[in-house]
Amino acid sequence: MEGTSEILEQAIEQLAKLPGTGRKSARRIALYLLKQNEESVVKLADALVSLKQSITRCSSCGVISDGDPCSICSNVKRETGKICVVEESQDVFLIEKTNEFRGRYHVLGGVISPLDNIGPDDIRIKSLMHRINDEDESIDEIILALNPDSEGEATAYYINKLLKPYEEIEVTRIAYGIPMGTELEFIDEATLSRAFASRNTF
Amino acid sequence: MEGTSEILEQAIEQLAKLPGTGRKSARRIALYLLKQNEESVVKLADALVSLKQSITRCSSCGVISDGDPCSICSNVKRETGKICVVEESQDVFLIEKTNEFRGRYHVLGGVISPLDNIGPDDIRIKSLMHRINDEDESIDEIILALNPDSEGEATAYYINKLLKPYEEIEVTRIAYGIPMGTELEFIDEATLSRAFASRNTF
Repeated sequence: MEGTSEILEQAIEQLAKLPGTGRKSARRIALYLLKQNEESVVKLADALVSLKQSITRCSSCGVISDGDPCSICSNVKRETGKICVVEESQDVFLIEKTNEFRGRYHVLGGVISPLDNIGPDDIRIKSLMHRINDEDESIDEIILALNPDSEGEATAYYINKLLKPYEEIEVTRIAYGIPMGTELEFIDEATLSRAFASRNTF
Repeated sequence: MEGTSEILEQAIEQLAKLPGTGRKSARRIALYLLKQNEESVVKLADALVSLKQSITRCSSCGVISDGDPCSICSNVKRETGKICVVEESQDVFLIEKTNEFRGRYHVLGGVISPLDNIGPDDIRIKSLMHRINDEDESIDEIILALNPDSEGEATAYYINKLLKPYEEIEVTRIAYGIPMGTELEFIDEATLSRAFASRNTF
């Protein structure tokens, strides 16, 4: 089509692949970049490439990190003996923001999902067991912080079963229930039902 | 903060500067890119840089283009004598999509806006007059397709006044099927097409 530029269209096509970005917003972003100075566009491009090229994963917990081991695993001030098991690296970030947990993490990199052909060997369960068997870590609690969907539940169940023989290790999971500041009226039945089932003494 | 990566944070910071992208979507995009293969991330980065480095502007109409003159100005099949005056390059793209106009364009690169210290000399009005005085172009109609806001109105008024002495040139403007206070960018094709077809004498 006339009235456009092949280079512009290529940039739009690439941008439109990003999550949450349709062709219209991709076009807006491209035209915005055209108005910026070259330095800042190169800075953005470099940041994206080094994201892919320079970032690594902690060989212990599996979180995405600038170095190996990551800043959490290498921090001697973190509580030893407690591992919080999460699905993805961003979950570590979210939990760290709460300042509620001072132990270490283990990122599974996914969940067991037979429909997607993802079994226990496809996620980082073996390396979790390796850490549990490592006497230096002397684990006494595994906190499961997986998403409350059927795959998360299945994965939590599987890990809990694996840990049954380890009597010295307590397996816990984060509480699922009514989110703070919400009214019951707006809560779905599944959540309300779960909140009821796991009610605590006041 | 622990549990995150400096490289990741830098990419998020750069992405969050894009229009329509807050920190949350920037993080989602960054984590999405981390999961892609290196080739496709490099492809995106290259597209953004070449957007800035390789794109040029048509020295005649001012539209962003891969070459100079642009594909519209160099197309001998386009109707001569008619110039559609728009604010920005993307307006050319939008009008081309309607297939309603087969003449050529002139991109002002902005509008007169005294509050922002933008006067007639700061936008491409001189080059428009130059084209109008060019006998090769033999202009007989100038179609004003500016945004229907006060700056667009002022600019249309100014250009119309400049063209008063040219009795052989008809000054028209796209019809106000377009709701006032909206920008061309957000108009659906059908409305824009209608507005073109029913343009009136200024």
